[in-house]
Amino acid sequence: MNYPNGKRAARGQVHAKKKASPNFSNRGMSLEEDINVTNEYYLTADIAVVHKKPTPVQIVNVDYPRRSAAVIKEAYFKQASTTDFNGVFRGLAIDFEAKETTSKTSFPLSNVHQHQIDHMKAIHRHGGVCFIIIKFSPLEEVYYLPGLKLFSFWDAQDQGGRKSIPYAYVREEGHLIPFHYQARVDYASVLDKLYF
Amino acid sequence: MNYPNGKRAARGQVHAKKKASPNFSNRGMSLEEDINVTNEYYLTADIAVVHKKPTPVQIVNVDYPRRSAAVIKEAYFKQASTTDFNGVFRGLAIDFEAKETTSKTSFPLSNVHQHQIDHMKAIHRHGGVCFIIIKFSPLEEVYYLPGLKLFSFWDAQDQGGRKSIPYAYVREEGHLIPFHYQARVDYASVLDKLYF
Repeated sequence: MNYPNGKRAARGQVHAKKKASPNFSNRGMSLEEDINVTNEYYLTADIAVVHKKPTPVQIVNVDYPRRSAAVIKEAYFKQASTTDFNGVFRGLAIDFEAKETTSKTSFPLSNVHQHQIDHMKAIHRHGGVCFIIIKFSPLEEVYYLPGLKLFSFWDAQDQGGRKSIPYAYVREEGHLIPFHYQARVDYASVLDKLYF
Repeated sequence: MNYPNGKRAARGQVHAKKKASPNFSNRGMSLEEDINVTNEYYLTADIAVVHKKPTPVQIVNVDYPRRSAAVIKEAYFKQASTTDFNGVFRGLAIDFEAKETTSKTSFPLSNVHQHQIDHMKAIHRHGGVCFIIIKFSPLEEVYYLPGLKLFSFWDAQDQGGRKSIPYAYVREEGHLIPFHYQARVDYASVLDKLYF
């Protein structure tokens, strides 16, 4: 059925630039990768300046072979003292963490660590905008949840509160982050709605 | 001369917490270490939330021995795409680089890289506050120089401008950063003067 100039051929051309089925084109990419792509686009299009912080590493032993680059021969992963992403969007200092869950019904708080909460609370106190990006992977839905709403669940755990944030709550109180081809996790559009 | 209960013994006690000679107590510490100590103090005293970004490393090979932490066996240093420090101070998104020079007369622009300038310009365009902290090591003087003043020297290089910023210019157009025991490079006091 592949006629020249026919419908199939036309679709074939489209396939070449993976523009087909845009709704599913982020399959196989991690949330972090999607955010990195988004940040690169934001930087190029001069929309925002946001970078992922490098993974902190304790370097113990470095080898300097002749005529080539230094090789780290022994190092260890350190616990990050901050969130993964931060930067500037229209004068706002923004700071966020990104997490994905395989659950369809709730976001387990075990995905977040006390030091990240402490950091986000400090950022909030000092006038920055902090939030968490949560991806419910089986639903292919990505949400922006304001830091304050995350904190209230986090703090309630000590008083016997839930160990997770229900999906229904995130859907109601958070903001669905739209997917665009270049801004795959277009959180700046949410910031735009919330702050400008 | 080391009498029991005598002067020497007393000084010995002081030495234990290195409180002696506060005017010179930053000798031997690098500018980066001094800024890290300052940032820890700012965080503890809730003055600002600023962190050094981890050194970016390309991890090639990781070993997972039983019952112990993962060991990175092969990795390489990557070029950072940003400045070293960023964070939030009273709602300002701040972003800076710190450099020391052994010169008494000028700050060589070769200490700074094009990608850092590009990053700082982007931060500036988006409403963040960017600057460079320059230490003239032989003088034990540390200055805050606004990003815009750094950019003007940087950009003038292409039109045959100087390859360094004269010390006299930094002293006139920059701001001497005071040393305090806890805030060893008290740049927040300069931000306070300039922006509040």
